[in-house]
Amino acid sequence: VPPPNAPRDLIDAVTGGDRRALARLLSSLEDQRDGADALLTAAFAAAVPAHRVGVTGAPGTGKSTLTDGLVAALRRAGRSVAVLAVDPTSPFSGGAILGDRVRMQRHVLDEGVFVRSMASRGHLGGLSLAAPKALLALEAAGFDEILVETVGVGQDEVEIAAQADTVVVVLTPGWGDGVQAAKAGILEIGDVFVVNKADRSGVAETVSDLRAMLALGHDASWLPPIVTTTASEEQGIAEVWGAVTAHREHLGPEGLEARRRRRRLAELEIAVVDAFRRRAAVLLAERGDLVASVEAGDVDPWSAARAMVE
Amino acid sequence: VPPPNAPRDLIDAVTGGDRRALARLLSSLEDQRDGADALLTAAFAAAVPAHRVGVTGAPGTGKSTLTDGLVAALRRAGRSVAVLAVDPTSPFSGGAILGDRVRMQRHVLDEGVFVRSMASRGHLGGLSLAAPKALLALEAAGFDEILVETVGVGQDEVEIAAQADTVVVVLTPGWGDGVQAAKAGILEIGDVFVVNKADRSGVAETVSDLRAMLALGHDASWLPPIVTTTASEEQGIAEVWGAVTAHREHLGPEGLEARRRRRRLAELEIAVVDAFRRRAAVLLAERGDLVASVEAGDVDPWSAARAMVE
Repeated sequence: VPPPNAPRDLIDAVTGGDRRALARLLSSLEDQRDGADALLTAAFAAAVPAHRVGVTGAPGTGKSTLTDGLVAALRRAGRSVAVLAVDPTSPFSGGAILGDRVRMQRHVLDEGVFVRSMASRGHLGGLSLAAPKALLALEAAGFDEILVETVGVGQDEVEIAAQADTVVVVLTPGWGDGVQAAKAGILEIGDVFVVNKADRSGVAETVSDLRAMLALGHDASWLPPIVTTTASEEQGIAEVWGAVTAHREHLGPEGLEARRRRRRLAELEIAVVDAFRRRAAVLLAERGDLVASVEAGDVDPWSAARAMVE
Repeated sequence: VPPPNAPRDLIDAVTGGDRRALARLLSSLEDQRDGADALLTAAFAAAVPAHRVGVTGAPGTGKSTLTDGLVAALRRAGRSVAVLAVDPTSPFSGGAILGDRVRMQRHVLDEGVFVRSMASRGHLGGLSLAAPKALLALEAAGFDEILVETVGVGQDEVEIAAQADTVVVVLTPGWGDGVQAAKAGILEIGDVFVVNKADRSGVAETVSDLRAMLALGHDASWLPPIVTTTASEEQGIAEVWGAVTAHREHLGPEGLEARRRRRRLAELEIAVVDAFRRRAAVLLAERGDLVASVEAGDVDPWSAARAMVE
């Protein structure tokens, strides 16, 4: 059992640069235990907003390699970096499959780099609240730069990346007619586009297709730049960061605050639904009679749900 | 305004084979309008459970072509078929991108085939309730066979397919080390596996890799069969249906009922959460003061949510 002043102590350790304390804080927030509510409030008070950079795209596009390259470049520039890698969760295993250990091996001894994997989903089909809470904890720890990389391909991961201040969308040559990308909604959320694996054929076509699609959809004040990279050879990494910085400057304090207001509202919506979700779990445990009727097929689930909630 | 006896009339038309009435019923259920609650209760009473077959797998594996082949084969055998195609929803467009019209063109004039596309998600990160409701409507319409095909790649689509009585998972040669498949959780949900595009190289390796992985994970009573197909040339389709039929027989009435009990409970959980979700929307509209504080960054979203719900 933690002592009464534990939340304050733990947050003090986190803001003081203690990485083990940060890891413990993240676990408590993710698992909703050890006074998570009090820890969150303290983390919120201690957090200094960082410019959050999201990195997303289809699987196999080299997002991880690009992120790894960005981390290396930022470290060379003397910046401390935190990476939150958002994984899909198997509906059966209930956990992220790629762990922290298999990722970013080369930065493992560097105190200026912190990598954390996190599942994108909670129970019962809900977007996990863990990612926004974790980002708050990383901000409390005072990292200069925060990257949110999505490992998965689903809507959840895209939505989490879309909440960043600058969203980098990674594609590869031969991404086809763009239907897949359009389906995932990633063309609409990108502030910077990267065509990775630029050593393959079809780069020029992909860039020009992309340029045409972006010209149709985006607002006039910011036409997202398209950067070509070969992340596996660390080519084009500086240009990607340059485009991120340009977007940051384009936003300015007002544009940034507008994004953050939108993000806070989105987080509030999810938080309210989550609070009700926990009430739903209690209700299901209490109303065994109705649950049994639904299970047997005597009552339809929707009528039973209405009866329970009303 | 529909007359008071409209739900009964509409359901009668649906059970009588009126396809326009079925389309209207599906739209009402999906959009939660025109007395959707009463319609759902009436559809539940009229529905005769069909053996639901889910077809899922990564994009580009040829799921749609396989489904189309299954439909053609079932039609030749004189069976009526309904296909529910579950699409991902763009977080921005809010609608399914692939519509009914571009799919299954060759069956468009066949009264014995009914195809419906449906978005996999609702608002606020929730699994859509539309798919289970739509399946009930299709059962009320009395189709001999119901196929649930997932167009998308996300967790939502996988979970919807996993609720079928028999789940067909489609892979292709060169699916790699299986990490992608394992991540999506599809190895765990498959009752029948199809290695499609069997005209490509690497079929034997993929089948033997898959066999090894399945031998590890599955229960002893049913080792999922692996069928190789070239769906684009309608090769192997009969064998796929044979494997589905074998699984159906393996389940028997008891196994089937056990699956359906599990499904009804899952639907109830989602329905209860959804009922609370609607309450959450009302609450957010009412508590403008707290919403403004969160938006401005003065209060964290999670404390505000707790304050609202308690």
